[in-house]
Amino acid sequence: MVCFLYICTTESAPGTTLNINRIFLGRCLEYQELTKGTLIQPVKVNCTELWSVFAKAWIHKDPRSIVPSDFDEFFDTAKQTDLPKDKILLWSGTYGIAHEYSNQGRRYVTLEDSLIGYLVNGLTWCGMVCSKCDGINYVECPEFSDLPREANQAFWGGASRTFARTSSGMVRLMVSGTNENRQAYSKESYFGQFELPSLSSDVHLQVILVNFLDKIPLERCNTGSLVALQKDVESRGLSYSCTENPLDVLHLMCVSDPSATKCEIDRPTDVLSAPPSLPDVLSGRVRQRNELQDDFRVE
Amino acid sequence: MVCFLYICTTESAPGTTLNINRIFLGRCLEYQELTKGTLIQPVKVNCTELWSVFAKAWIHKDPRSIVPSDFDEFFDTAKQTDLPKDKILLWSGTYGIAHEYSNQGRRYVTLEDSLIGYLVNGLTWCGMVCSKCDGINYVECPEFSDLPREANQAFWGGASRTFARTSSGMVRLMVSGTNENRQAYSKESYFGQFELPSLSSDVHLQVILVNFLDKIPLERCNTGSLVALQKDVESRGLSYSCTENPLDVLHLMCVSDPSATKCEIDRPTDVLSAPPSLPDVLSGRVRQRNELQDDFRVE
Repeated sequence: MVCFLYICTTESAPGTTLNINRIFLGRCLEYQELTKGTLIQPVKVNCTELWSVFAKAWIHKDPRSIVPSDFDEFFDTAKQTDLPKDKILLWSGTYGIAHEYSNQGRRYVTLEDSLIGYLVNGLTWCGMVCSKCDGINYVECPEFSDLPREANQAFWGGASRTFARTSSGMVRLMVSGTNENRQAYSKESYFGQFELPSLSSDVHLQVILVNFLDKIPLERCNTGSLVALQKDVESRGLSYSCTENPLDVLHLMCVSDPSATKCEIDRPTDVLSAPPSLPDVLSGRVRQRNELQDDFRVE
Repeated sequence: MVCFLYICTTESAPGTTLNINRIFLGRCLEYQELTKGTLIQPVKVNCTELWSVFAKAWIHKDPRSIVPSDFDEFFDTAKQTDLPKDKILLWSGTYGIAHEYSNQGRRYVTLEDSLIGYLVNGLTWCGMVCSKCDGINYVECPEFSDLPREANQAFWGGASRTFARTSSGMVRLMVSGTNENRQAYSKESYFGQFELPSLSSDVHLQVILVNFLDKIPLERCNTGSLVALQKDVESRGLSYSCTENPLDVLHLMCVSDPSATKCEIDRPTDVLSAPPSLPDVLSGRVRQRNELQDDFRVE
C-alpha cells in the first residue's frame, strides 16, 4: 500500500470502494425520494449524519479490531420498524434469484432493499490506523476469511439481525438444494446465526427451496438439512412450512432457461381469427419521469 | 412557490427531486464502480464535470424554453460506444416488464441501464429564471403535456436517439398489444420518433410483442400497428422479425400470475426415492460484499 500526503489510493483498488461516502450519501438521499411503487414506506433520515454514524464505526480502526457493537448506533439510526408484514424475503446462498424475485422491493423486501442493506450493498470498506491519512484504506481490505469471526460478521451479522427483528407475519426464506458446496441450511449461515434467533415467535417461516433446473437436487423439503431447519424453527416456537420450486419461482428460473424440460408450457396456437379492434386514438408517449410510479402497462 | 433567500424548496415537492445533484453524483460514481456482473463495460468519466454539463443545460432556464440541442454536450460526454452487441432492449409502453426482463443490465441493456438513463431515471428536474435562487425549481415542474413538444422531448428524445445510435446487432423492442389506450407501435412514440430513425441499417430489429395474460390481446404480430411497424422498419433497410409472448417473457409474466391458464406447467411428482447424498463439509457463508460479482448459486 502506498500513501502520499493524506491520500491513500490506487486505480484498481481491492480496498474500500472509491468515493464510498458520496455513493452512500447519494443512495441515502435517493432512498428517501424513490420508494414509491415499492412495498417500502417512505423514510426520513439525516443522510449526512447517517454517514458519520456509519463511518465512525470503522474509520481510523484496524479492520481486525472491529466488534459487532461498533455498528449498533448505525443500525439503531437506520432501522425501519414499518417493514411490510408478510412481504419479507430472507435468503441464504441464493442472492441472485432472491433479488430477481423481490424485484427491488416491488414483490418482496430483502435486507438489501431495506435502508441498511441498500446503503452499502456491493460496497467494500475498511479502515486503517495512520496519522497522515483519512483513516480509510482504499488499497486493500482483508479477505473476510482472514478476519477474526467477530470482525468478519460485525456488519452483515448485525444488519441481518436488525432486519429479522423488524420482520413480521409470514416471512419467506429462500435457500438452495443444488449447491454442492453448501447445504440449504446450516446453523453457521447468517440466517442460522443471526436471523432465525431474531425472528419473533409469532412469525410463520415459509421456506422456499430452490432447486436450480440445470443441477441435481441434493435436498428436498423433507430431507437433509431442511429437517434440521424445521426442528430449529419449531423449537423456537415459530410455525414452519416448506415448498420446493413453487410455481412463481419455477417460472422465474424458466426465464433464463425456457427450454428446460420442467419449463414446458402447453401452448395452444391461439391466433385470432378476426383482426383485433383497435382504439382509434393514439396516445402520445410520455417518457418515464418516475419509474416507481409506473406500472407494467403504462409508460 | 415560496423562496426564502437562496432556497426554494418544499417538503412534498412535485418539482425537481430534492438533492438531485448529490443523487446524480452518487449514481455516477457508483456506475463506474459497480458494472461488474452486468453486460456493461466499465466507464470512466469525471462525475463532477458531468453534473456541470447536465446542469447547465437546464438550470437558470425557463423549462418551456429548453430545446433538444441544450443536452447535446451531455449526451456526447456520457454516451457509451461499447454497449454490448445483440443485447440492447428498447421498450415502448412496457417500462415495468422490460426492466424486469433486462434485470439491471444482466440479461439485456435498456436505456435506463446505460449511463445516460441510469443517472436520471425516475428523477424530475426543471429550472427557473430568478436572481435570488439557485436556478432550480424544487416546488413545481410543468407537466410534460403542458410543455412545447420540443422542450417536453428534449431530454428523453435525445437520450433515446443517442442510445439507439450506439446499438448494434440484434436489437430487441418490447411493445404491448394489450393496452387499450395506445397501440403497440406509433410513429409518435419515442421509439418511432427517435429510436427507429437512429438505428443503423445493419441492425436486425426483433419485436417482442407482450400480451399481458389478464388482458384481451388487441394486436398480433401480423395485425394492427405491427404491420405498419414492419413496413417502417424494412423501408429503412433494417431486417425485421416479431414474436408474441416468447417463452422467456411468458415465464416472466407467469412469475406474477402463476395460476393463469397460459402458465400451466405439467409437473410430475418428482420425489427422490433415496435420500440425497450431501457434501460432508459445510461451507461457511460469506455475506455479499459485491453483488455484481455474485451469481445465482453463491452467496
